[in-house]
Amino acid sequence: MATRNASPELLIVMAAGATPDQTEHVVARLQEVGADGRVSRGREVTVIGAIGERDLLAGLPLEGYPGVERVLPILKPYKLVARELAPDPTVIEVDGRRIGDGYFGLIAGPCTVEYREQTLETARAVADAGATMLRGGAFKPRTSPYTFQGLGLDALEVLREARDETGLPIVTELLDPRHVEEVLDVADVVQIGARNMQNFLLLAEVGRTDKPVLLKRGASASVEELLMAAEYVAKEGNERIILCERGIKTFERSLRFTLDLGSVAVLKEETHLPVIVDPSHAAGRRALVLPLARAAAAVGADGIIVEAHPRPEEALCDGPQQIPTAEFGAFAREVTDLAALLGKQIG
Amino acid sequence: MATRNASPELLIVMAAGATPDQTEHVVARLQEVGADGRVSRGREVTVIGAIGERDLLAGLPLEGYPGVERVLPILKPYKLVARELAPDPTVIEVDGRRIGDGYFGLIAGPCTVEYREQTLETARAVADAGATMLRGGAFKPRTSPYTFQGLGLDALEVLREARDETGLPIVTELLDPRHVEEVLDVADVVQIGARNMQNFLLLAEVGRTDKPVLLKRGASASVEELLMAAEYVAKEGNERIILCERGIKTFERSLRFTLDLGSVAVLKEETHLPVIVDPSHAAGRRALVLPLARAAAAVGADGIIVEAHPRPEEALCDGPQQIPTAEFGAFAREVTDLAALLGKQIG
Amino acid sequence: MATRNASPELLIVMAAGATPDQTEHVVARLQEVGADGRVSRGREVTVIGAIGERDLLAGLPLEGYPGVERVLPILKPYKLVARELAPDPTVIEVDGRRIGDGYFGLIAGPCTVEYREQTLETARAVADAGATMLRGGAFKPRTSPYTFQGLGLDALEVLREARDETGLPIVTELLDPRHVEEVLDVADVVQIGARNMQNFLLLAEVGRTDKPVLLKRGASASVEELLMAAEYVAKEGNERIILCERGIKTFERSLRFTLDLGSVAVLKEETHLPVIVDPSHAAGRRALVLPLARAAAAVGADGIIVEAHPRPEEALCDGPQQIPTAEFGAFAREVTDLAALLGKQIG
Amino acid sequence: MATRNASPELLIVMAAGATPDQTEHVVARLQEVGADGRVSRGREVTVIGAIGERDLLAGLPLEGYPGVERVLPILKPYKLVARELAPDPTVIEVDGRRIGDGYFGLIAGPCTVEYREQTLETARAVADAGATMLRGGAFKPRTSPYTFQGLGLDALEVLREARDETGLPIVTELLDPRHVEEVLDVADVVQIGARNMQNFLLLAEVGRTDKPVLLKRGASASVEELLMAAEYVAKEGNERIILCERGIKTFERSLRFTLDLGSVAVLKEETHLPVIVDPSHAAGRRALVLPLARAAAAVGADGIIVEAHPRPEEALCDGPQQIPTAEFGAFAREVTDLAALLGKQIG
Repeated sequence: MATRNASPELLIVMAAGATPDQTEHVVARLQEVGADGRVSRGREVTVIGAIGERDLLAGLPLEGYPGVERVLPILKPYKLVARELAPDPTVIEVDGRRIGDGYFGLIAGPCTVEYREQTLETARAVADAGATMLRGGAFKPRTSPYTFQGLGLDALEVLREARDETGLPIVTELLDPRHVEEVLDVADVVQIGARNMQNFLLLAEVGRTDKPVLLKRGASASVEELLMAAEYVAKEGNERIILCERGIKTFERSLRFTLDLGSVAVLKEETHLPVIVDPSHAAGRRALVLPLARAAAAVGADGIIVEAHPRPEEALCDGPQQIPTAEFGAFAREVTDLAALLGKQIG
Repeated sequence: MATRNASPELLIVMAAGATPDQTEHVVARLQEVGADGRVSRGREVTVIGAIGERDLLAGLPLEGYPGVERVLPILKPYKLVARELAPDPTVIEVDGRRIGDGYFGLIAGPCTVEYREQTLETARAVADAGATMLRGGAFKPRTSPYTFQGLGLDALEVLREARDETGLPIVTELLDPRHVEEVLDVADVVQIGARNMQNFLLLAEVGRTDKPVLLKRGASASVEELLMAAEYVAKEGNERIILCERGIKTFERSLRFTLDLGSVAVLKEETHLPVIVDPSHAAGRRALVLPLARAAAAVGADGIIVEAHPRPEEALCDGPQQIPTAEFGAFAREVTDLAALLGKQIG
Repeated sequence: MATRNASPELLIVMAAGATPDQTEHVVARLQEVGADGRVSRGREVTVIGAIGERDLLAGLPLEGYPGVERVLPILKPYKLVARELAPDPTVIEVDGRRIGDGYFGLIAGPCTVEYREQTLETARAVADAGATMLRGGAFKPRTSPYTFQGLGLDALEVLREARDETGLPIVTELLDPRHVEEVLDVADVVQIGARNMQNFLLLAEVGRTDKPVLLKRGASASVEELLMAAEYVAKEGNERIILCERGIKTFERSLRFTLDLGSVAVLKEETHLPVIVDPSHAAGRRALVLPLARAAAAVGADGIIVEAHPRPEEALCDGPQQIPTAEFGAFAREVTDLAALLGKQIG
Repeated sequence: MATRNASPELLIVMAAGATPDQTEHVVARLQEVGADGRVSRGREVTVIGAIGERDLLAGLPLEGYPGVERVLPILKPYKLVARELAPDPTVIEVDGRRIGDGYFGLIAGPCTVEYREQTLETARAVADAGATMLRGGAFKPRTSPYTFQGLGLDALEVLREARDETGLPIVTELLDPRHVEEVLDVADVVQIGARNMQNFLLLAEVGRTDKPVLLKRGASASVEELLMAAEYVAKEGNERIILCERGIKTFERSLRFTLDLGSVAVLKEETHLPVIVDPSHAAGRRALVLPLARAAAAVGADGIIVEAHPRPEEALCDGPQQIPTAEFGAFAREVTDLAALLGKQIG
């Protein structure tokens, strides 16, 4: 029997009291789907190494077979995004701006496009202060139906104008699969927000485009789930993906989210994709954004994405966490000095 | 100045060192948007009660104003789904089957429609055993892009046939806003899955239909976020919503999810909507489904939704947690005896 | 080489690029400590089954050896408390009261001994209503140093008097290893509180006594950590241990803790020890205690431990969650009816 | 009525339907314990500001009173450790070594004292590389009773010798209140481990000594609970406390713990005490220790505490996460360069 991959994908540990028949039954089921099982019988424990295509094995409910105690995956469930496959770090280039490897991205802009002048004013300020891309939400997913949901399609025109004036590539979120065309017409980098990290339809849609994707980690997504979400995008053909840590939900409430910088270090080991950090949402308040942004650079992130506003106290969305544009230059210098110490240059 | 609601929505606590000017500034901003602020000055702490429309206040970044220490919401952020507004429990009726108040719903069926005969066989078995509705997935969101994603639109035809034969109303998930018409054409109850609980577009879509909605709690959604998601549906005009607890993500790994039955008891206090429990996904293994289903009935849930399969070991999806249809009758009796002890009848 | 246990304790998975030397090095280190390694070489992955005494293997930093990718434990880390070793459920008997197997324990009493009359009044009320043991804290661990910390040794005398009058065995907490003698002189069941679940000194102390131990799960302890804590007690010779689920810390804040009833079902599979539930601390409010207590019985717990007070609004500690003694009879009936439906009798 | 503090400690929000009698009852109860209540009646909501000694109010079960909807604390529950009380950062000085304000502490050493030569060799190496204090465990709390628990009192003699030779102050853990005298005889800084963060007996014991205390955050302790634990120490008279973040328990499993660096930034706002970080336990593997240590310095921590070993692969405890002493110099330089960029000098 020919298998393209001779290394076991899974170890199937049989229960202490499992019968030889049960072991044979597992092997038979593996073979039915074109996989194979190599039995290693100990005096008390029997282990089966399952060999075969990941896709075949994934379809088998091995843990439900009689006599099976545990199923232990040996190989990582992701492949296109794994560092094993592409040991060199990926650099994402957009209009001459770069993120990844030695390039540190500094993405800044308003939480949301509120009106033309606020967005243009912010864009100019962050461009002057050295930002490498402009962020800005057109569609805002909000916990309450009674709060501002974004300007929608109108905001896209404002972002286009901001790009024309400042030259900064635009990062904006795609929320609705019915808006793919309009959003991609303006976005230079298309963002998939944290709440949509496992919206697999949206992932497949952006996987079929040629625009880089900024994929935010869901507030309760594991590192592995984030990489599997990226795999959904890559599987459709688009491997230009920037991962973004933005805080997870834990019991701790002194910040809005617990920024999981350890996972950034793990991601840098696991994947060749660039990894950036959004310190604004986890912080929830301006005073905490700078220390978290510095920590992100220090842990090895390939960039940050932060929120800025000319007059945060008038902001329609997340005002307390936005950096006043007047202070953005000083903020950017602190972060880039630190990135420089680690041998990175602003992309 | 006229305000429609004279009770404070929020208490704004000023910092110990806040100046009178800062307090006045907050009140001025409240008045600018048509709200009002009532200042209560203590010797060391000043508190402002903000009075006005929730929608107006929600737009103000109060926490970012100079001198503001904390903003404490007094009233609940949800209203249409709140028990205060509708003290009588809602009963959802579909084709003569009922869920809520004294009626306990017993929704069962395959995790996913794999092929016609498996679905029909399951439907007959659970109908015979006393199920009140038939569940079955046409579209399956899966963590890995390499696993079975459901039969899609073809599955809907199978579900229609199962309903025609058994008379059981169909509960099936809507994943893609572009499939609203096709799914609603077959679904008697349209399910919004846990990963889409905050997919606000989808919530608005089902809010505009007249079909009951089964809204599953996201794995990291708080009780309040679940109620806000229901509010999104209700705001569009559809108040026939069934909430469903299905387990949350915690540090504990001995089960797939931590079934949060305490939140079911809280939801029964907070909302007039029926609340059911899905014990299958949290359990992850068949042997745990029955104890969790009993506990759900005992805590006061208005029903359960469980997975069943004629031959779980052949299931394409979540086989280990599916109850064999041959055992479903015994399972159903245990749960309904317990519901009966609490004074409920099968809907 | 003789090994007393020929079944692998661990599977050591070598990294894809590991050299034969690295594999041999692992085996050599295993042999140095008197264990052994059985190498199973695949074309791409090599797995070593480590065979030997658990205590020997536990001392080796296998995960740090060059070339080692992962170490997968095959056997459970606990043994004395595991169901494998003692398939029959343990029944704990104290003065004719029983918990475990078919016996449901109903432990009730004040959160803390405040003064003599409050404790005696509560003891009489719960005894009349069918409680099987009396709980009452002499020493109270409190988050704030500014709150009531319990009456201390004086409370023990009050508890002794309550036992003399009602005949109920006393369950009370041991906090300080320097109080072992005094506490054990009065306690019929000695409680180790949630904050001390991993206070290994205290576990060893109670392991050397002949009194049953009520071991509460820590708010962030996994099921496995709870069983390992019980193993600490059992290892010293005392296997009369009652485990107690009392809620874990999660992101959810609508209750004080998330009562993890699924873990109770898992514990009933994993261990022969009885498992009870404390619904009061998770609930935090009286109205939620009854639904949670019913759910505990329904999930298969061997008993509950709840707080009661003649006048909860005067209680010095956790008043909101205490059941008024006047309502305790009705409460007890609801729970015991449900336990009876599952074939259990009050112990 | 005289109250020493005229600012409300708490806001008591009455339920929408609360009666005037219920409000009066709350005020009467406040007055009975020597506190006071200032009633602010809105048209729909009534709020009572409770004024009085924290200790008095803490004893009242306000949330259980009829008509009370919620109790909102206005002032922080900690005071001695709060920045409000002591706006200047505390510097802890031990034998000429300093931690806090501009001084960055570099505490290093073995996880545990295994034998004399290993400890002395490590001590010399970290001293040469610029460490400011030597850590080393004499008593090791371990999850399993079958693993190495430390050399105990014998280890203290080895640590004394290491101090005599290198001049580095000793940081070692106190586990058992019966060992206070022996441990304090050797320790220059006494550590309270994460599992004992809420062992209030131990906190009181070290609060009565004149040695600085290194207090580690429990794996599921909130920032507020950590500060309350510090308050227990300070209340006994010892305010020389170093707080230490070492990772919290979350759903994420790619590292052992989630290092919560955001909480370090919050702690720096909330308290005048120095805050350090232990990156070793959260990392669990050596390769992650350096990025996390850099991030700790970047977020504003006052130091780090890390594990080092001459031959990690022979370590009896946590080998995979220990830094080889041969690499410690390079490690220390990276971290101190980064601290220098933030204007800190090695203490």
